[in-house]
Amino acid sequence: MEIKVVKQILAWNEDVSEKLHRITAEKKVAIVNVMGSPGAGKTSLIKAVINGLRDSFRIGVIEGDIAGQIDAEAIDSMGIPVVQLQTDGACHIEAMSIENILPGFDLDALDVLFVENIGNLVCPAEFNIGEDLRVAILSVPEGDDKVAKYPLMFATTDALVINKYDMMQYFEFDDERVCSDTYDINPKARIFKVSTRTHEGEGAFLEWLSSKIEEKIRA
Amino acid sequence: MEIKVVKQILAWNEDVSEKLHRITAEKKVAIVNVMGSPGAGKTSLIKAVINGLRDSFRIGVIEGDIAGQIDAEAIDSMGIPVVQLQTDGACHIEAMSIENILPGFDLDALDVLFVENIGNLVCPAEFNIGEDLRVAILSVPEGDDKVAKYPLMFATTDALVINKYDMMQYFEFDDERVCSDTYDINPKARIFKVSTRTHEGEGAFLEWLSSKIEEKIRA
Repeated sequence: MEIKVVKQILAWNEDVSEKLHRITAEKKVAIVNVMGSPGAGKTSLIKAVINGLRDSFRIGVIEGDIAGQIDAEAIDSMGIPVVQLQTDGACHIEAMSIENILPGFDLDALDVLFVENIGNLVCPAEFNIGEDLRVAILSVPEGDDKVAKYPLMFATTDALVINKYDMMQYFEFDDERVCSDTYDINPKARIFKVSTRTHEGEGAFLEWLSSKIEEKIRA
Repeated sequence: MEIKVVKQILAWNEDVSEKLHRITAEKKVAIVNVMGSPGAGKTSLIKAVINGLRDSFRIGVIEGDIAGQIDAEAIDSMGIPVVQLQTDGACHIEAMSIENILPGFDLDALDVLFVENIGNLVCPAEFNIGEDLRVAILSVPEGDDKVAKYPLMFATTDALVINKYDMMQYFEFDDERVCSDTYDINPKARIFKVSTRTHEGEGAFLEWLSSKIEEKIRA
């Protein structure tokens, strides 16, 4: 019974997601869907991207949260256009929400829109939101078995950022296992080892991200 | 549209949850719903409880996962009766699944059944599964803003276990904030500061848990 319900929602969500692809192709705006557990470092990574790429691209952010606006305030204080999306309890962002929010941005003055999804390794992976790129974040303290246990997130992402890599010495975390588990289900995934605290490894990620944004806005 | 669907499922879920309460009241078995993000330490806490309370109570475990059976194998190797529940993509456990699994346990030979919910701070909190107790786990590396950002989980829990407390020195984590945010929305919550790695703080949690299990099985 439940599975039938989920499929209904997904079909409707896919229609809106396709519509968003048509809009962003015309306006030449890349949408990046940033996903991961609570506290994995989604906001920190978006802040690192803003600091690293704000001279190259015009950046906007949609901050998804169940409640509150803590992260949106942090982005706003950086002088970046940001909209807070509150899902009021829902565990993921749907394409319809992005469609509603998009007219609030000046798309002619934007190259890339980051959407920070709800902190959750499960549901967000099931719902396309018109994104061009998916970035999944897994942090070292979460453990090295998460790819095996939450496969959809890691099978459908374009990039996996292993964050809090500077904490490797304090946790039992086999990064080889994470990489091989990821490549098994997603051979094209790009994996980056990063610390958003020390900024180690951010450069390689930003380089890859830049090239992907370029592909979309120069198309 | 989506909200209507969720409410339908919840109403149906509540009926089954009530039925489970009647069964466990008759059989004098306490059900403990263990919730938290991926990697917060749910399995580790259950293992600590098994080691600490197996001489006092007859313990069973239901391990909920999207896929796989890594955690169930760990519990099985401790000689504890365990059932693996695979949600096949769903982001939470529903009462109906517990109802289906329960006959697989000998309830006359059980005092307490731990249910490890899906790693997720959002959806599991919305679905009662016939539990007598809710235990929410938040680990230090996840950050101190999680109570504010995922309020339902922390507003509805009986106990909050702040895990990986031995890692406090390596992370910016204001445990006073976590406690006051929790008490604001859940004045009766018990909060325990624990490290399932060093076993610090486990004793106080086990003492509280024992008294709560006693309440149910001596009723």
